[in-house]
Amino acid sequence: MFLRKRQSKGADDLTSLCRTLLSHRGDVSGARLATEVVRTWQSLDAAGRESFFDRLATEFTPDATAVAAAVDAYQKHPAPATLMRLQRAVDSPRQELFRRWNIAGGGTAALIELRRRLLQTLKAHPERAGIDTDLIHLFRSWFNRGFLVLQRIDWHTPAVVLERLIEYEAVHQIQGWRDLRRRLDADRRCFAFFHPALPDEPLIFIEAALTTGMSDAVQPLIDPESPVGDPARADTAIFYSITNCQKGLRGVSFGNVLIKQVVEDLGREFPRLRTFATLSPIPGFRAWAEAQNARWTQVDAATATAAVKLELTMLCAQYLMHARRDNEPADSVARFHLANGASLDRLNWMADPSPNGLQRSFGFMANYIYRPEDLEHNHEIFARESRVIASRAIEKLARPAA
Amino acid sequence: MFLRKRQSKGADDLTSLCRTLLSHRGDVSGARLATEVVRTWQSLDAAGRESFFDRLATEFTPDATAVAAAVDAYQKHPAPATLMRLQRAVDSPRQELFRRWNIAGGGTAALIELRRRLLQTLKAHPERAGIDTDLIHLFRSWFNRGFLVLQRIDWHTPAVVLERLIEYEAVHQIQGWRDLRRRLDADRRCFAFFHPALPDEPLIFIEAALTTGMSDAVQPLIDPESPVGDPARADTAIFYSITNCQKGLRGVSFGNVLIKQVVEDLGREFPRLRTFATLSPIPGFRAWAEAQNARWTQVDAATATAAVKLELTMLCAQYLMHARRDNEPADSVARFHLANGASLDRLNWMADPSPNGLQRSFGFMANYIYRPEDLEHNHEIFARESRVIASRAIEKLARPAA
Amino acid sequence: MFLRKRQSKGADDLTSLCRTLLSHRGDVSGARLATEVVRTWQSLDAAGRESFFDRLATEFTPDATAVAAAVDAYQKHPAPATLMRLQRAVDSPRQELFRRWNIAGGGTAALIELRRRLLQTLKAHPERAGIDTDLIHLFRSWFNRGFLVLQRIDWHTPAVVLERLIEYEAVHQIQGWRDLRRRLDADRRCFAFFHPALPDEPLIFIEAALTTGMSDAVQPLIDPESPVGDPARADTAIFYSITNCQKGLRGVSFGNVLIKQVVEDLGREFPRLRTFATLSPIPGFRAWAEAQNARWTQVDAATATAAVKLELTMLCAQYLMHARRDNEPADSVARFHLANGASLDRLNWMADPSPNGLQRSFGFMANYIYRPEDLEHNHEIFARESRVIASRAIEKLARPAA
Amino acid sequence: MFLRKRQSKGADDLTSLCRTLLSHRGDVSGARLATEVVRTWQSLDAAGRESFFDRLATEFTPDATAVAAAVDAYQKHPAPATLMRLQRAVDSPRQELFRRWNIAGGGTAALIELRRRLLQTLKAHPERAGIDTDLIHLFRSWFNRGFLVLQRIDWHTPAVVLERLIEYEAVHQIQGWRDLRRRLDADRRCFAFFHPALPDEPLIFIEAALTTGMSDAVQPLIDPESPVGDPARADTAIFYSITNCQKGLRGVSFGNVLIKQVVEDLGREFPRLRTFATLSPIPGFRAWAEAQNARWTQVDAATATAAVKLELTMLCAQYLMHARRDNEPADSVARFHLANGASLDRLNWMADPSPNGLQRSFGFMANYIYRPEDLEHNHEIFARESRVIASRAIEKLARPAA
Repeated sequence: MFLRKRQSKGADDLTSLCRTLLSHRGDVSGARLATEVVRTWQSLDAAGRESFFDRLATEFTPDATAVAAAVDAYQKHPAPATLMRLQRAVDSPRQELFRRWNIAGGGTAALIELRRRLLQTLKAHPERAGIDTDLIHLFRSWFNRGFLVLQRIDWHTPAVVLERLIEYEAVHQIQGWRDLRRRLDADRRCFAFFHPALPDEPLIFIEAALTTGMSDAVQPLIDPESPVGDPARADTAIFYSITNCQKGLRGVSFGNVLIKQVVEDLGREFPRLRTFATLSPIPGFRAWAEAQNARWTQVDAATATAAVKLELTMLCAQYLMHARRDNEPADSVARFHLANGASLDRLNWMADPSPNGLQRSFGFMANYIYRPEDLEHNHEIFARESRVIASRAIEKLARPAA
Repeated sequence: MFLRKRQSKGADDLTSLCRTLLSHRGDVSGARLATEVVRTWQSLDAAGRESFFDRLATEFTPDATAVAAAVDAYQKHPAPATLMRLQRAVDSPRQELFRRWNIAGGGTAALIELRRRLLQTLKAHPERAGIDTDLIHLFRSWFNRGFLVLQRIDWHTPAVVLERLIEYEAVHQIQGWRDLRRRLDADRRCFAFFHPALPDEPLIFIEAALTTGMSDAVQPLIDPESPVGDPARADTAIFYSITNCQKGLRGVSFGNVLIKQVVEDLGREFPRLRTFATLSPIPGFRAWAEAQNARWTQVDAATATAAVKLELTMLCAQYLMHARRDNEPADSVARFHLANGASLDRLNWMADPSPNGLQRSFGFMANYIYRPEDLEHNHEIFARESRVIASRAIEKLARPAA
Repeated sequence: MFLRKRQSKGADDLTSLCRTLLSHRGDVSGARLATEVVRTWQSLDAAGRESFFDRLATEFTPDATAVAAAVDAYQKHPAPATLMRLQRAVDSPRQELFRRWNIAGGGTAALIELRRRLLQTLKAHPERAGIDTDLIHLFRSWFNRGFLVLQRIDWHTPAVVLERLIEYEAVHQIQGWRDLRRRLDADRRCFAFFHPALPDEPLIFIEAALTTGMSDAVQPLIDPESPVGDPARADTAIFYSITNCQKGLRGVSFGNVLIKQVVEDLGREFPRLRTFATLSPIPGFRAWAEAQNARWTQVDAATATAAVKLELTMLCAQYLMHARRDNEPADSVARFHLANGASLDRLNWMADPSPNGLQRSFGFMANYIYRPEDLEHNHEIFARESRVIASRAIEKLARPAA
Repeated sequence: MFLRKRQSKGADDLTSLCRTLLSHRGDVSGARLATEVVRTWQSLDAAGRESFFDRLATEFTPDATAVAAAVDAYQKHPAPATLMRLQRAVDSPRQELFRRWNIAGGGTAALIELRRRLLQTLKAHPERAGIDTDLIHLFRSWFNRGFLVLQRIDWHTPAVVLERLIEYEAVHQIQGWRDLRRRLDADRRCFAFFHPALPDEPLIFIEAALTTGMSDAVQPLIDPESPVGDPARADTAIFYSITNCQKGLRGVSFGNVLIKQVVEDLGREFPRLRTFATLSPIPGFRAWAEAQNARWTQVDAATATAAVKLELTMLCAQYLMHARRDNEPADSVARFHLANGASLDRLNWMADPSPNGLQRSFGFMANYIYRPEDLEHNHEIFARESRVIASRAIEKLARPAA
């Protein structure tokens, strides 16, 4: 009871600080006030944050009377002037509030953190959706691709950034500094997008291996003991991991731009590269297969017979080519690469024999190919028809047996 | 006729490129398309720009049917959900268009230039106000103070930036590189705000002289031959010029933050500084005085008698204390500093005897004082009551003779 | 036999490349030739290096005839002109050779490595001393303190540099990245000297802890789990480790300058710091004590009685105050700090209970104090008289019992 | 008299400070003392400097007794050990002194300035040659090419550096900032060598124009109003000016390395460049011609007849091919480029019609060609035989008429 009070007091204080920040005093002492706002926000505990989200959802919203009046005026006379009045009236004071938060040192990071926590509560609190709308509107402006900086990550990168890579890497976990170092060696490339206001925080990063031939297994790529190849002789760049770092920036997409730009940059640095491809997980395959037929729950891919292997391969091709959710490919990784204009090229049996890989997809991984000259066309077809563009081999595998 | 056609063709091309940029193709090939958009825009001549502004004003606007429907829905049931729908419906596609322009290298600069040109046409074309609203909305997000970088400008600054200072300085023109160099010498300080996407373009800059006592004349400060003082002995920082560089960013204010931050930084670097003051022009005084009484049109301040000098001084005090426009001080410079929380401290006779200075204000200049501890309080009084806070001496001068 | 030949062939090739580098061709194609020289050197194995050292020792030396003639001339008429001729005649061609090596990218590092290997052979090959003399002569010019750059090392430092710290730290080994991170946290400071030609290679680094009171034990300082203190409240900076990184730069001293400069910098950053002291090992104590009296070989300090503890403490004080080698304090760490002008302040029982610490000094460590105002005076006394400047307490402990 | 005393007092003080700097006190307080030394040096006037040079010449020299003993020892037994003793004995204490000066901030610059002033006095004071020998010995170590950094100079370069270019350019004076800006425009390149200890001071810089065809006149290249060409279409890089900036570094050569490296860098940036050539003055031609035949004193090249032009052209070819001084080409510019391995390609009539150009060489300029693949070979021939390598056309012109 007491705690609850104290916390609602924290949220009260913060709400009141936010009001001041939006007032005349904020015009002059914005930096000082914004710093106080950020600190107070950071000191809230879970109950305090809940309470503050409620305040954000109900206060700092457009003035209902002004909206009603603007709506009336527009209805009577729909015209540029009444439209502008309407736009002004529905413009959320939260946006100006967040813009002023941002003046504080660390303000941008605090807002990303605020949204990260907000997102966790949205299901239970759909009435908070408006806060999210305001935040994502701002983030889309602030994190405009034109403001992002592509940086190569290597062993000359500050430790504070490398540590984040170890922390964030989601696809193939990095097992400490030795593992990381191998991933940054001469035959590897890692690139990240940064925003000038967050110099130590990668927004997204991609890991590539420069190889001869298209990799069909991920273990050799992430093995810290693997021999280091000569990048000048490589003919293929394999993107084996791409990681969005900031949960609070969900919905602000960077991935497609990042891959495209890295393909261009690598092509320039290594003119012998011919193929740019991913080695990607197929996260939804096993769950889908098991839902199709309960017998797959029993299968141990590591000891499967050739017949089972063939059957699973065909099933996997069918999954990627035909399984749909909301009229799009059911597999989230497939959706991402196909929407970028890549094409599905090959399935690789036992490409990821880790427990995680077996659990997700019986160890299968897919190669998606990025052909710079096809990306735009493929993307348009996919955007129009949601059709999966794949190699003949995969199309054939996916065909129902006669 | 032919030319006109060609230009409207330019605008047609650009409009059509803009549509593509907003389409699926823009998702994948944003950078390439945005670059083409920016180049096409830059190749337009005056007629082409006019034509393109018309297209921007009438196309890329919210869908009228969707707005009407959202308005109806809100009116029937004003609630968070219908409000969000309304916000989405009135959101201008131009904003997304401009966000995509920005992906191009040089995109930000091109948009600032676009607005600069647009502003010149707004009086004649009020129907274009919506374009301006969309641009300024974006610019307020993009040029958020939290993203600006304060940089000292000195003789180690790249020439490309210094050249801009010479070009932009509006208050006391810089007569070439020798003049500039004096203004950056040991007893001077110059600071500017930069945005990371425009590294060579100052947004605003301020020039200060470190002096003993508060300057009462500007010529010694801008004289390239003046002896260089020892900044460590100075007790006063005189801000004698502040220049907004980007006309296309009009209405996005940086000035107040810049002065405040520079006051803090100088106070830290030179602990002996006691006074932070401006030496400011009084741009509207002479015009106002002449409107009051035609005899002032004849006055040559340089040869004025003591009596005339006194009369003018009192008149000047009255002007700054009491002349109003829209219930605010009529003088634009006074409005700026008072709104920042500064106070009007002193009037200086023949402080700027240049033709320009005589023409604006009979050569008068004003000192406004920035006392860090008073700024917030002063600003609030000014914001609430529009009352001019001034020294006793000036209040007395401004009092009507008994 | 065959190998030996091959290697002497490697040394032959290198010798011949060195001759070319010194010739006219080297004037024009210095960079290319120097790069070849460096690569050939790096490809030599142990036998090849031995062979090359022999060639360096006997060839590339001053021309004997010219020296003899210059010696004669000087003897006949000792004057500035004959002295200059003599200087020219004895000037070693090896110096010009090494200067030309240095043109290659990586040349400086290769020469440091060359000297590191050379030093290992000097005892067995005193005739190679001249090579060493030439190298150290060059290094003293190149690594002049005026060219060194002091840099703070923290978590923003590139990993490539941090990795070297882990590798080089000799006093208290760094157990991986977590340990390192603790040593770079908010209540610690680490500084290193760098040379512009070796941007990734620290020459020497020092680790300090900001504490309250003078530390009497090293384990809390190097415990990765120790709580992080507030540096703004510290009154003492404890230097607990200083490491020379480059064995090939032995004899080019940086340590005294580094400590002095760090003391100044820390004093400026944290005005509340009152005491600057080391917590230093006493490497020679136990060996000396055991040589004095064999009974000390049996002592287990960890379980010693109070009487033994007292006896050892007095013995340690005597060792530091009076044990001499070549008329200087026998303890190398003591020599270093006393020569810098520090004074011996306190002995700490069980300050380093690690096996290493027990083995070196029964676990004792010493605090040496750096008082900026006393350094010069202390150093002069020490340089003149080799007298150990110590606190009263230690002087008293060192006094022979009556 | 009084002044003289005061100045000799200044030199006394400085001498005594130098002694302290070399003493034990200098070991500990080197930076402080060195700073005092530099300041005292800088405060000396001409008489004081003269006096200090005398002290430097006679004191801080090797100990005569030690030299005599080492000479004896060597004579008795010439061996590595006695040679090393001799080297140590003749090693000048001035070198250690100057190394310690260098610790001061600004020390390197002060020593360069000291040598610049010293050089002006050497003719009158040959006994000071030893000081110069010591300085140049140090400078050759410190300014080793391996430590120099090549930087492109353009409009992004700090003004403090650009100002030096205006000041230093000796070949074709830069007439202010507008002129400089043209020389740094898109179809020009300027590169300079810097030393890390002198970040604002170019050591040497070279100016190149990217042109179509080999320039035969310099005015179009240095005309601030000349149209800016497209560098991507250029087939020729014309080096029209190369300037050594630091008189105090005379004899430490950078020029040959600079040209070679710039040729390589430009070739990489602009693969269409086929010819790398200079457009060079012929400083000694007119004086030589006039010495040959007094009638040339009367010639006004600007109005010369075709016959005179031909005669002068042949004479110029003879001058460059055959005029010798100390068995080397008499022309200093020719010596420089030929020693670098360039070849004399073409003579250009009225290539520099400025008063200066007419005065030096009747307006003639020469093109020397740098063919990367020939440089080494040419240099060797020149070094061995001092033979001028020239085009057939010039050889023919230089042939005495039958």
